[in-house]
Amino acid sequence: MKISDLFLVTLKDIYFAERQLLKALPKMAKAARSDALRTAFTDHGEQTQGQVERLQRVFEILGKRPAGQTCEAILGLVQECEELLAEAPTPSAVRDAGLIACGQAVEHYEMARYVSLIAWAKLQKQDEIASLLRANLAEEVAADDLLTEVGETSVHADARADA
Amino acid sequence: MKISDLFLVTLKDIYFAERQLLKALPKMAKAARSDALRTAFTDHGEQTQGQVERLQRVFEILGKRPAGQTCEAILGLVQECEELLAEAPTPSAVRDAGLIACGQAVEHYEMARYVSLIAWAKLQKQDEIASLLRANLAEEVAADDLLTEVGETSVHADARADA
Repeated sequence: MKISDLFLVTLKDIYFAERQLLKALPKMAKAARSDALRTAFTDHGEQTQGQVERLQRVFEILGKRPAGQTCEAILGLVQECEELLAEAPTPSAVRDAGLIACGQAVEHYEMARYVSLIAWAKLQKQDEIASLLRANLAEEVAADDLLTEVGETSVHADARADA
Repeated sequence: MKISDLFLVTLKDIYFAERQLLKALPKMAKAARSDALRTAFTDHGEQTQGQVERLQRVFEILGKRPAGQTCEAILGLVQECEELLAEAPTPSAVRDAGLIACGQAVEHYEMARYVSLIAWAKLQKQDEIASLLRANLAEEVAADDLLTEVGETSVHADARADA
């Protein structure tokens, strides 16, 4: 196994994950009770479309066809989110707090993947690829920070009142 | 659903995850080629035992029996690590780079969970619980930083040579 093989398999993993999120984020937005949370998920859904396009550009630079590889971790994270909505069928501040936690778990997964991919791109002196991946990483970090902020400003006080 | 319900289900999720890692980390240590990486996984395995004990203390404070709840995300992350070892059966610097990525994905998952749990413990004015969870979070952040450092100092140069 070469570092380029490890890079490609991990690229396919995050490409699969981002495409899963393209489908999951609109559902999370629809489920949100807080306007701020709905907006955060909707905006990040649009951002995710741009991230998928950056990943397609990375495949193109490598001369490979964009292809996903099933990522059990992201399927598990999306499933946890669906379980939350099944267990709490009615919109509430507590359910929003759970949706924020689901979103942040996804962001952290993506951050970890991008950190690894960027390190390996740099090793291979693939500056353009590293730059594309850094753009995605910066958006994931910002999305995670925004979810923390939405929790503090728009969700948690109401969730406590429901306790 | 109350915030205390959301807290308990997420506590059971991370308890399951930490106990899975107690089993996975010795295998990851055994698979590592780099001495520094093997030591990092071994030390974090011992740390994880202490984290499990802190979580048991959290259950105790809540008057609940410690119990895990299957966490598909961590099962997926552990499975990705097993697939890496199956695809690269021989120890190498590239395989070590992949093991570091697996380890960092796990650390990030745990960080996200602890960040949520700490926010909810604070909401419920559960200071002792928040303090126990903050101790676990600090160890996950340090473990993630150490894996980055081990990659940079002990693995990546060799992995490039294998490219």
